[in-house]
Amino acid sequence: MASIVLGIADPTRLFGENVQDSTKPLVTIVGAHERVVSPFDYAVTRGDGIFEATTVWRGTAISLQAHLRRLAHSAALMELPKPNIVEFSRAVDEVISHYDDPEPGPILRILISRGLDADTGVGRAGNGLPHVWMFLDAQGALHETDPITLTALNRGYSSDITLRAPWLLNGAKTLSYAVNMAMHRECARRHVDDAVTVTEDGFVLECPNSSIVAQYGNRLVTPNPNIGILHGTSQRELFSFNQQEGGSWEYAKLPYARLQEADHIFMTHGGWVIPVSSIDDRTYSVDPGFVQNANDAIHSGRTEAEALRINPNH
Amino acid sequence: MASIVLGIADPTRLFGENVQDSTKPLVTIVGAHERVVSPFDYAVTRGDGIFEATTVWRGTAISLQAHLRRLAHSAALMELPKPNIVEFSRAVDEVISHYDDPEPGPILRILISRGLDADTGVGRAGNGLPHVWMFLDAQGALHETDPITLTALNRGYSSDITLRAPWLLNGAKTLSYAVNMAMHRECARRHVDDAVTVTEDGFVLECPNSSIVAQYGNRLVTPNPNIGILHGTSQRELFSFNQQEGGSWEYAKLPYARLQEADHIFMTHGGWVIPVSSIDDRTYSVDPGFVQNANDAIHSGRTEAEALRINPNH
Repeated sequence: MASIVLGIADPTRLFGENVQDSTKPLVTIVGAHERVVSPFDYAVTRGDGIFEATTVWRGTAISLQAHLRRLAHSAALMELPKPNIVEFSRAVDEVISHYDDPEPGPILRILISRGLDADTGVGRAGNGLPHVWMFLDAQGALHETDPITLTALNRGYSSDITLRAPWLLNGAKTLSYAVNMAMHRECARRHVDDAVTVTEDGFVLECPNSSIVAQYGNRLVTPNPNIGILHGTSQRELFSFNQQEGGSWEYAKLPYARLQEADHIFMTHGGWVIPVSSIDDRTYSVDPGFVQNANDAIHSGRTEAEALRINPNH
Repeated sequence: MASIVLGIADPTRLFGENVQDSTKPLVTIVGAHERVVSPFDYAVTRGDGIFEATTVWRGTAISLQAHLRRLAHSAALMELPKPNIVEFSRAVDEVISHYDDPEPGPILRILISRGLDADTGVGRAGNGLPHVWMFLDAQGALHETDPITLTALNRGYSSDITLRAPWLLNGAKTLSYAVNMAMHRECARRHVDDAVTVTEDGFVLECPNSSIVAQYGNRLVTPNPNIGILHGTSQRELFSFNQQEGGSWEYAKLPYARLQEADHIFMTHGGWVIPVSSIDDRTYSVDPGFVQNANDAIHSGRTEAEALRINPNH
């Protein structure tokens, strides 16, 4: 039992429709400081893999099904084997069962690499299977709901690039996050907490590791994922909460100028709704009661089933 | 002694101006199949690091100084500690000294990660130093000089993005290569060997893991790195060879239409010049003698000193 639980999951059990060998353990738990990755792994040599992260709140992984469906979507965009969502859910449960820390909301991360790099001798001698690591971590950065300041950063793409150039992997949650990290360094340079990215032609995208939601009256609006961004899991939980409270929601191709006119702005990720107090020179008021109620609803599981049905097509 | 040599280099010796503790070994050689990376490492969690790769030809790393200078350039763009080029050269020599295989041209790769992910509990308990792995590999994919076929792929950026959005890290050789790998999958789908990337406004960039050089008469032309691409190491060796043979060279903002009009086209990387026989529907003749002589010159070291002085500013 531990504050940081690290598991290595068996790839022969986690991909495809049929469990191949149920006599082997689904997840092997190892010490958090064990070095279990080869430097010949595609994750190391090429950032070639996908991931998901969420909060485990009092033993339950928030929005887990939405995260695992998104993992499967990323796998398809990356031409990785199809994750078996039932087995992944079981593996997550097993990791959670080894957690023992007073912190109620540790962070779960699921990492999938393409496996050993087939351009290396070590990779050529391998079995070609993906590698899966999962960890649950109470000792790292945890979520807070203090209002945050944002800056707008140009993502360099036009709003119609995704269909024209699918090899740019827009909309896949890959392990290649160097640009996202550079954006956070740019935020630090500008003395703000985080960023919202914008296309060359002025449409809102997402934050480097979260989604953005604008509130106008009791209507919530977020960019349509078809612009080439992740479909937010916590954003859908927030939409579900707002619907339960009598409000409405919308997916839109959202001009940055329209975002600026919002009554309130939220950043959502990992099971949390975080209020935004400014984007560059423009300030936004914060309604701490709404934020608290939304997070409480999400963490209680009240919004989960409905959130799974929320999507841009209805 | 081995066909694959894996070394873990000591970061306290490899960054900054002063060697901090020369009693510890600079490089620790471990078995190629040892798992020496933590899944909490930034290389795994975020593809957050940089690398270089080249051929070691009969014991000498081709263009090593140019590669290490480019590593330092990538480190600066990524706000990583400054690599000590003298110590990195010594570390490379040490890795090479453990190699023992008949193959004359194994691939050397130098990987630097930002270290343990500071957003994780394992990272918070760490020392904050980068991690450096090096390997020399005779068993993986090696270079060949058979003519290759290319396709043109849109990189999604306009030719002036780099100055406007430095957080996109264009021109840094990061570990976040998921898009580069996706481009290679697109090439396989199109039944070609590799790609050349092009800006939204029609200017030539580079190949997913190499440079592109066009030949017009006895003049060689390559895109100016200030467009936001890597400065090719083997490209400079080829320019140096061409100059020694009485030809000339040029860095240009190269329209794709001008590339198409070339007499010959070359892909250059890792100490090799590889002839291009087609880009999509357009075919190019190959001069095997020129290619052979260029590669022989590069591998003999004849072009190295001059290559180090070749740059877009003179």
